[in-house]
Amino acid sequence: MNRAERAQMAMMLEVCAYPKPGNVDRCHDYEDTRLEHFLASTILARPVFDAAERDGGRVGSLIREAVRRTNNHSGGNTHFGAFILLVPLVLGGDIEGARRVVAETDVEDAVDFYAAFGLTSVRMGESDDLDVNDPASIAAIRERGMTLADIMAYSAPRDMVAREWTNGFALTRRCADLLHAHGCGRKAIVDAFLDLLATEPDTFIAKKHGMEVAERTMRCAAEVLENKRDLTAFDVECIRDGINPGSIADITIAGIYVALGEGWRWDC
Amino acid sequence: MNRAERAQMAMMLEVCAYPKPGNVDRCHDYEDTRLEHFLASTILARPVFDAAERDGGRVGSLIREAVRRTNNHSGGNTHFGAFILLVPLVLGGDIEGARRVVAETDVEDAVDFYAAFGLTSVRMGESDDLDVNDPASIAAIRERGMTLADIMAYSAPRDMVAREWTNGFALTRRCADLLHAHGCGRKAIVDAFLDLLATEPDTFIAKKHGMEVAERTMRCAAEVLENKRDLTAFDVECIRDGINPGSIADITIAGIYVALGEGWRWDC
Repeated sequence: MNRAERAQMAMMLEVCAYPKPGNVDRCHDYEDTRLEHFLASTILARPVFDAAERDGGRVGSLIREAVRRTNNHSGGNTHFGAFILLVPLVLGGDIEGARRVVAETDVEDAVDFYAAFGLTSVRMGESDDLDVNDPASIAAIRERGMTLADIMAYSAPRDMVAREWTNGFALTRRCADLLHAHGCGRKAIVDAFLDLLATEPDTFIAKKHGMEVAERTMRCAAEVLENKRDLTAFDVECIRDGINPGSIADITIAGIYVALGEGWRWDC
Repeated sequence: MNRAERAQMAMMLEVCAYPKPGNVDRCHDYEDTRLEHFLASTILARPVFDAAERDGGRVGSLIREAVRRTNNHSGGNTHFGAFILLVPLVLGGDIEGARRVVAETDVEDAVDFYAAFGLTSVRMGESDDLDVNDPASIAAIRERGMTLADIMAYSAPRDMVAREWTNGFALTRRCADLLHAHGCGRKAIVDAFLDLLATEPDTFIAKKHGMEVAERTMRCAAEVLENKRDLTAFDVECIRDGINPGSIADITIAGIYVALGEGWRWDC
């Protein structure tokens, strides 16, 4: 399995694993975003991963191209966060390589990334002076000489995916370690996902519902692990309230990519 | 969406559609063959479809290569029949082009196809004098000058996928027409699948359980369509008895590929 295939397999395996509280999985759709949307993005992103593996290329424009290719269906952009992690991982091969990719980003990567952002409906936060929908933001990036790594550092306090760029892919590494520890196959993915959910407030939830809800979700996941709360009931509640831990899902995809490269077996 | 992507989308959409009586779908696995196996094959077949679309190439060796690339997991070969239909469709673009591809096959295609067959655990039938596990079969093919189209004609009475090669992809065409008639999205796939199941005995079932069981399955599907039988209960029975209409699933994949090329919408 080459890097591009590993990235696609990670995207596919993550969305098929169940039950993952609150997220689209094999057993749950949201009304507008369904399993097929996630799997279509998995298929349609391939040329970008292929190009990254074969030709290298620039991380900002590759993320923009991945978003552009996977933005054409009604499900919205399903994997923006995953691409932010997978593109440097595929370019660099592994976490060490991805850190080098991150360190070498420049202003053009930042500008391309903003163009990718503009293609999605993802919000950065209302108080943001680098609003992606404001053309002045691009001018501000150029004027300040901000690299894409700088942009991620700027977003890191509010976004755990961006934070991976600033901390050397620490949660991605932890997720891969959890997968190795939990054994092979689908159940290990669910277990690793729950471990992360029980210890980290999901910033996608925090942006949508506030930090208090993100922290409550974290405590509920911990109770599931302590057998004090029923997993299925927790899943139903999350789905009902639109509480979906999308950022931990993105990090899980990156963790699966890394683990597969280290010999972790999806098929057992 | 190019041809290769359309082929992959067809494979993905078919396996995700549910409920499809007896088959692996979003809600059902068999113990050894699971949703992830089907989706892994969907991902791993891509280079073969890409090569067929970009460079053309020989149908026999492309089928062999598709089987080789998707044979590396414990789920067995999930898409052998689908590749028999998709490879000429991707090479030729549409049904008319696929007919030309079929008409131009030669002895080398037949030999490569037998090599592909040998990689799978698919049986041709006990009374077969062209047994794929018998090296003498290859010699017999060369001696008789049999093309791959001849091989398919030889198998056609017992195999509805092979029959597509001899009848100009008639059921593939019918499936695409049914998809257009049923509207867009997942439900249209299930409806088209049931229409085929209610009118054609599935030869995969016939090989495994005998023609009587295949015909009974067909009658049950017809009763579902007449609201005389419950779809979910029928699905449960099929799964319990290992009755899986694998050949109609292969033809459904080919039908989705064709319909997507004619503007049918998977996303609605």
